Amino acid sequence: MPKRTSVVAFQGEKGAFSQEAINRLLGSRVEVLPCQRFGEVFQRLKDKTASAAVIPIENTLAGSVHENYDHLVNFNLEIVGETHVRISHALIVLPGVSFRGIRQVYSHPVALSQCLRFFARNSQLESVPFYDTAGSVKMLVEEHRTDAAAIASALAAGIYGARILRRGLEDDRRNFTRFFLLRRPGDARPRCVAGRQWKTSLVFSTRNVPGALFRALSAFALRDINLTKIESRPLRGKPWEYLFYVDFIGRVDEPKAKHALAHLGELADFLRVLGSYPRGA
Amino acid sequence: MPKRTSVVAFQGEKGAFSQEAINRLLGSRVEVLPCQRFGEVFQRLKDKTASAAVIPIENTLAGSVHENYDHLVNFNLEIVGETHVRISHALIVLPGVSFRGIRQVYSHPVALSQCLRFFARNSQLESVPFYDTAGSVKMLVEEHRTDAAAIASALAAGIYGARILRRGLEDDRRNFTRFFLLRRPGDARPRCVAGRQWKTSLVFSTRNVPGALFRALSAFALRDINLTKIESRPLRGKPWEYLFYVDFIGRVDEPKAKHALAHLGELADFLRVLGSYPRGA
Repeated sequence: MPKRTSVVAFQGEKGAFSQEAINRLLGSRVEVLPCQRFGEVFQRLKDKTASAAVIPIENTLAGSVHENYDHLVNFNLEIVGETHVRISHALIVLPGVSFRGIRQVYSHPVALSQCLRFFARNSQLESVPFYDTAGSVKMLVEEHRTDAAAIASALAAGIYGARILRRGLEDDRRNFTRFFLLRRPGDARPRCVAGRQWKTSLVFSTRNVPGALFRALSAFALRDINLTKIESRPLRGKPWEYLFYVDFIGRVDEPKAKHALAHLGELADFLRVLGSYPRGA
Repeated sequence: MPKRTSVVAFQGEKGAFSQEAINRLLGSRVEVLPCQRFGEVFQRLKDKTASAAVIPIENTLAGSVHENYDHLVNFNLEIVGETHVRISHALIVLPGVSFRGIRQVYSHPVALSQCLRFFARNSQLESVPFYDTAGSVKMLVEEHRTDAAAIASALAAGIYGARILRRGLEDDRRNFTRFFLLRRPGDARPRCVAGRQWKTSLVFSTRNVPGALFRALSAFALRDINLTKIESRPLRGKPWEYLFYVDFIGRVDEPKAKHALAHLGELADFLRVLGSYPRGA
């Protein structure tokens, strides 16, 4: 992907954790395109407003981002990269504002719910739900709020010229989000930080008969292919039937993986490979 | 469960779809205990404020209610019943209000997003997100709103003395929610409408080694036991490891199921049966 055409779509305001993922995957010099909704991120890549997209797919505390699994099957885009970002929440204020001056703390409800101990220890502070983590920093700056703070990424403080008062506000430090880098099929692969191992993501459905999922998984198990994730999602229009999303260690063009996919193809009603990509650090 | 002590906890205001599930499972004469949050529903059953609880576990359009999967493993309660409710949205107003008099329509954001065609056809109406479907009917009545309507279950109209103007507002009629009936282990099973087939729900985890899930599923497949659902959830404190929730056709005290569970017990690091119950209609 030539640098001058690198526009990377993501959900949220500038400074969102998705932008940290973009920095890790593609460096900090790419142009970013903030979008309000996840569907818009996929759409901007599809209609060529963006040349790549970065989306969160799962979090170690909250689980999968199911909406994005649905978009992956509905938009014909390809996963070409993966990274993991530790979600560390910073307390951010306007320059010159001290901890004593704060009355209200704005952030996304999920971020607020991950910092309950901080609020228990500081009962004078009122937590105020806001539509976005980085967006709450942006609001402080735009409205010159000297009586309030925001909880967001350290990156957001830098972007909006605000100041970090405290770091590591989150209750549980084992809070990581996994992100996918997407491109249009056929486009050049973005040069991204590459690990040695590869992973492949795919989606399939089986008829609802006894042992169908077991037989489908045999395509991998009988070839000693390690699955790192399996996720089920309801199949629209067929109540109580499911799509299965699977990640495995391997590249789609390796002989072992090719055989496994051919075997799975015999057993599945529907099968699509979503992409092969270097395993994220 | 003797009738005089039947108090059934559920999430939402009176008239919620969960109350329709209660009516289907236990009849309409039980006393209901509305709770604000799902965690509170489990807690009220655990601390004996309620004698049973009804919770949604999955929806054919939106997927699983992941928070309730987490509560099922954290609270030591037992699944003893299952039912499916078709989610049909009604347009509800105060008696005497006509369609022409409506300017705003209140409901839960998920319900509003399931009636997009209705709003496209009636662009003069403003959709207003509210905390609860039935709660929006309650609000209309309490505040004597003659310029507004609510989208909620037909049941909610009856409970609050409001009037149904239109039924079937939802875009997709294949919209069903599956509910579980819970009790404390050791308590008598509530008498509920029983099907002929039984289902069992369980949760397990395996070591993260190649083929571990495949071997775990072999405990069922090798005995021709049909799985109806498999769901993965992140394991807290162990990033990128998972708990698996499985439903199968059969009773936990049948020999075949006993053997399958003993076999799975050999392979799993952790295994808990969440309950056996008559399969819902």
